[in-house]
Amino acid sequence: MKHIHIIGIGTGNPEHLTIQAINAMNASDVVFLPVKGAGKEELAEIRREICERYITRPAGRISEFAVPQRQAADKTYVQSVDAWHGEIASIYEALISGLPDDGSGAFLVWGDPSLYDSTIRIVERVRHESSLDFDYTVIPGITSIQALAASHKIPVNLVGKPIEITTGRRLARDGLLSDSTIVMLDGEQAFAKIDDPDAEIFWGAYLGTKDEIVRSGRLGDIATDILRLRAEARQRHGWIMDIYLLRKGRDFEE
Amino acid sequence: MKHIHIIGIGTGNPEHLTIQAINAMNASDVVFLPVKGAGKEELAEIRREICERYITRPAGRISEFAVPQRQAADKTYVQSVDAWHGEIASIYEALISGLPDDGSGAFLVWGDPSLYDSTIRIVERVRHESSLDFDYTVIPGITSIQALAASHKIPVNLVGKPIEITTGRRLARDGLLSDSTIVMLDGEQAFAKIDDPDAEIFWGAYLGTKDEIVRSGRLGDIATDILRLRAEARQRHGWIMDIYLLRKGRDFEE
Ligand SMILES: C[S@@+](CC[C@H](N)C(=O)[O-])C[C@H]1O[C@@H](n2cnc3c(N)ncnc32)[C@H](O)[C@@H]1O
Ligand SMILES: C[S@@+](CC[C@H](N)C(=O)[O-])C[C@H]1O[C@@H](n2cnc3c(N)ncnc32)[C@H](O)[C@@H]1O
Repeated sequence: MKHIHIIGIGTGNPEHLTIQAINAMNASDVVFLPVKGAGKEELAEIRREICERYITRPAGRISEFAVPQRQAADKTYVQSVDAWHGEIASIYEALISGLPDDGSGAFLVWGDPSLYDSTIRIVERVRHESSLDFDYTVIPGITSIQALAASHKIPVNLVGKPIEITTGRRLARDGLLSDSTIVMLDGEQAFAKIDDPDAEIFWGAYLGTKDEIVRSGRLGDIATDILRLRAEARQRHGWIMDIYLLRKGRDFEE
Repeated sequence: MKHIHIIGIGTGNPEHLTIQAINAMNASDVVFLPVKGAGKEELAEIRREICERYITRPAGRISEFAVPQRQAADKTYVQSVDAWHGEIASIYEALISGLPDDGSGAFLVWGDPSLYDSTIRIVERVRHESSLDFDYTVIPGITSIQALAASHKIPVNLVGKPIEITTGRRLARDGLLSDSTIVMLDGEQAFAKIDDPDAEIFWGAYLGTKDEIVRSGRLGDIATDILRLRAEARQRHGWIMDIYLLRKGRDFEE
């Protein structure tokens, strides 16, 4: 049977690759490289560098494919995501069916495949909706949450307390609910709308890459600085990926 | 100046080590290995195996140290943790002061140092409360959450929805609040007390080790099986580490 590896590759630092990820890349006949979205060229470059650095198998082949954009017009968010996954599923189906019999392929996933990523969902969809016969395994990778915490040298949780991981959209809608809230996928800088000046923010952009920027402090003191810094960086690069932790209270307070 | 590496090593699978972690182990004059708590011998064995497999530096030294137990008697939870951290800080201080001038040491942390782990807090405490002069860096590792998701081959979040990470104690107290709730540090099997038979559970124990067990299904159908399986495994090994995801609803439901 054909086999697919869904491999987490971390979020920019090639040294965040695990031994398991490297072994799986080398066990694959073909490594599929998506070329897509914001920062297309830079992100594709990081993926290529990872392949160059770690693929030692002599006959290892790399196959780049273009990922379509999500079409939001005339659709609810959910419908647009569903239709988009359908389109990507057709592409995956073609890639997988092009593998040799009993051959194996690898999809490289940014960060970890379990966190705000749909590769697993789409591969499951191909298994259910196509007539292709294959199985797959998932290999974890370092997430942007861990890259953020490591750069700031902080624990994400307060002692014994919970953590919420959410999106910018939901933070803007629901406000700050947890002692420790990680915000990802924030296109609207929702932190600047939170009315809790005493909360602490730990922010990072382009984590793990040579362009990494991090800032931390009291939200009331540095929210405006981060807004400015973020806008400048985004302008300069043409794209940005950022993430932050918002924290209320301290360890050992009840 | 002396330098400390706080290195995430994953949660049992030696192949979850990253290249950065391996490089930092090899850049350290001494690797400090805690011997502690539940599963003392097995967990120490995994750490030793990691050192053996990856330390290639000829003069690399390993130094094992015993970690005291937390004393809960006559104290609130918070007081007991604080006192316990104080005791460990004294041990760290002795270990660090034993390093050669300009030497470096490594603390190997189970999983990722940012998730329900106090190594960073305690190292900060040594920096503030002792007269030792040193700096440190943090190196991320694969968490038990990612090991769980990879073994079940699932995304942790529903499309665009938040995730809560909490402890057994808080789940028992607050109930199921989020669509996707990860429960760690659960000594009371709080899942069995949740009155939501239609929730799905994705459970795993000894993840990444040769003894890994995983189960998934409708909570109402399999909670009792997991309780039994868990009790048997715990009895057989003398200890257990388990984690689970509770999920309500499905992708693409509003
Ligand atoms: C579609 S999600 C993918 C997350 C990824 N699977 C992970 O494990 O981190 C993309 C979001 O992750 C965060 N992110 C990913 N890489 C990042 C990086 N290098 N620096 C900062 N944030 C990053 C940002 O919040 C971004 O909006
Ligand atoms: C003190 S916390 C440390 C978490 C660790 N820093 C991490 O990144 O996963 C210990 C808890 O992590 C979970 N855990 C750690 N290793 C595990 C494993 N191999 N299998 C299942 N659960 C594990 C359990 O919920 C356990 O109670």
